[in-house]
Amino acid sequence: MSVTFAQGFSAAGVAAGISSVEGKKDLALVVNNGPLDAAAGVFTSNRFCAAPVQWSRKVVADGHVKAVILNSGGANACTGEAGYAQSVATAETVAGLIGAEPNDVAVCSTGLIGELLPLDNVLAGAKSAHEALAATAEAGTDASHAIMTTDTKPKTVELTGSNGWKIGGMVKGSGMIAPQLATMLCVITTDAVVSAGQMQAALAVAAEHSFNRIDVDGCMSTNDTVLLLASGASGIEPDKDEFNKLVREACASLSRQIIGDGEGASHDIRITVTGATSEDAALACGRAVAASNLLKCAISGNDPNWGRIVSSLGTVPPEVAPYDSNKVTVDVNGVRICENGGAGRDRSEVDMTPREVHIDIDLNTGSDAEATVWTDDLTHEYVHINADYES
Amino acid sequence: MSVTFAQGFSAAGVAAGISSVEGKKDLALVVNNGPLDAAAGVFTSNRFCAAPVQWSRKVVADGHVKAVILNSGGANACTGEAGYAQSVATAETVAGLIGAEPNDVAVCSTGLIGELLPLDNVLAGAKSAHEALAATAEAGTDASHAIMTTDTKPKTVELTGSNGWKIGGMVKGSGMIAPQLATMLCVITTDAVVSAGQMQAALAVAAEHSFNRIDVDGCMSTNDTVLLLASGASGIEPDKDEFNKLVREACASLSRQIIGDGEGASHDIRITVTGATSEDAALACGRAVAASNLLKCAISGNDPNWGRIVSSLGTVPPEVAPYDSNKVTVDVNGVRICENGGAGRDRSEVDMTPREVHIDIDLNTGSDAEATVWTDDLTHEYVHINADYES
Repeated sequence: MSVTFAQGFSAAGVAAGISSVEGKKDLALVVNNGPLDAAAGVFTSNRFCAAPVQWSRKVVADGHVKAVILNSGGANACTGEAGYAQSVATAETVAGLIGAEPNDVAVCSTGLIGELLPLDNVLAGAKSAHEALAATAEAGTDASHAIMTTDTKPKTVELTGSNGWKIGGMVKGSGMIAPQLATMLCVITTDAVVSAGQMQAALAVAAEHSFNRIDVDGCMSTNDTVLLLASGASGIEPDKDEFNKLVREACASLSRQIIGDGEGASHDIRITVTGATSEDAALACGRAVAASNLLKCAISGNDPNWGRIVSSLGTVPPEVAPYDSNKVTVDVNGVRICENGGAGRDRSEVDMTPREVHIDIDLNTGSDAEATVWTDDLTHEYVHINADYES
Repeated sequence: MSVTFAQGFSAAGVAAGISSVEGKKDLALVVNNGPLDAAAGVFTSNRFCAAPVQWSRKVVADGHVKAVILNSGGANACTGEAGYAQSVATAETVAGLIGAEPNDVAVCSTGLIGELLPLDNVLAGAKSAHEALAATAEAGTDASHAIMTTDTKPKTVELTGSNGWKIGGMVKGSGMIAPQLATMLCVITTDAVVSAGQMQAALAVAAEHSFNRIDVDGCMSTNDTVLLLASGASGIEPDKDEFNKLVREACASLSRQIIGDGEGASHDIRITVTGATSEDAALACGRAVAASNLLKCAISGNDPNWGRIVSSLGTVPPEVAPYDSNKVTVDVNGVRICENGGAGRDRSEVDMTPREVHIDIDLNTGSDAEATVWTDDLTHEYVHINADYES
């Protein structure tokens, strides 16, 4: 379903011979059939950002996007002017096929860094994808498969507003996932009648509270891209608050699915920090805990090791997050194993069998700001994937 | 040898029944027999710092330390007032044994966070250690064994100044090792005639360039302590520059040994960043690369993955480290696999068989500031140790 759930969008996913995996679908095309072509986007802040990111950032800047072409099998990052020329050529080809300007076509790539794409395959694949375009559920599903790399399953979302307008979306991402976006490509579509400015505002807030608060492995990618496209095909102008809410829900669902499919993960870890003096303080604490390899190993061994939680918390400078270490409590899966900065109930009381692990940290500053971040545990399988997968 | 290499020091390492490993030496005592008792120290900046750190920081503040007692088998961290009372009682017992004030006895602990020590065993062990005190090489070796936890080998250093004064030292540390010190306890002794102020200055600089520039797993401990003790027993007042140099060499040797014994590591990785606008900028870049789990996995798979190097480099904000991503070069083991921010020579040319891997990053800003950090690769064995070892 994914991006074709909203009216006014057609999609396709084809095998274009870009991926080294024989026969894998590796090229997706999403076309906005209008009547609107409003668009918003957020991109990686990595200074080695890929050619398609440099291109698409310019494309989205004017608030108009008619199509997005996405490939797995190659990131086209650190490829210099030749790589940029490939992104431009890809956009030009798609523009010719759909009768648009190149500047209305966004390009996304994911895969190995540092190598040019097999451009002939990409351009031939664009033609195949254009021929396969359909507004069906199956076409949306094909597109969501074509962007997968180490993902083990496609990740999609479908939401419906109170008076019938819709949001659909797809994302890929599994490793090189860190706050400030992830190695992820995400396309969200809506048939609501909304302006590009409204979309950009909604997307920025939604991404900040979702994609920017997940961390599989602390590594920020060169290619992260989140696009939001509106066709207006429903003819419905949604309530602004509801629109913001559903965009946020869509991003939350997709980012949660990334964590659920984190490379090699056996536990999804939700870290909520409460009782902080500010949301930024809570977030800094949550991120410090989420970044602890030692804790992530302990969780993979089903050990709710609160010592590794508080020792990570203790690395956050006081000026960033004021708190008294003697007042901190930590609950894991509902059991208060750390009380007043020291041992609480015995850690053997914690049931670690569920895949989802909840770490609730109360800083007890007297204020009530809070933040939640998600991460994965660190497993043998993660090391295996990343020691043996060239990317 | 270790701490007894310098004249004027006696040491012991005994099995006191603190560690859960039956019969393991787990208590070390180092006594400064004078004539001087000058001392300096640097400690973890973790806000959940352990009771012995709180105690020893006060002890060292006046520049006088007559003895250090160190235990493995328990960190006495996050143990509140009861834990602090244990550190005080331990210092009092040692002070009684050697005829000193409690305020002249530093205490160090390492092991599981969040549990009190078996104090009776610690105090009885202190008496055994006092009886076993000797100025011999063997006694120094015993002490270096007694502080080990997941370390697979003792780590010691012996250096001799140009006119015969000496420095000896021991350290433990293997996991929970990150910039801003490590899960490490370190005692360095010297028979030089030096003042506490001179020692503190030398140690601060030396630690900044050694212990603060290694990173096994990005995790900062609650117990890190580095102590430098001077007996003056050689009667030699060393050249100040030479003293600084040898303290720095001792710290560099010990921190290098920690990396060489990093938990589960199969490669020691030296990351040198040159051509930076400032040492801080170079350091920020080196640390960002050293913190990349993806890179550390790739190295464990013998893959000199420059894409993961530059994508980590790209996360350093421009205001921290100005550079042009199109000018960056990366050499791994002497092969320039990244040139002008893109692909250079083929990565298959890199010989990854040596344990030591050299990553040389030139930012080519036109300035020549540089910094070096050390880290380890991330292996199955690291996950195994930290998923199964309660700490």
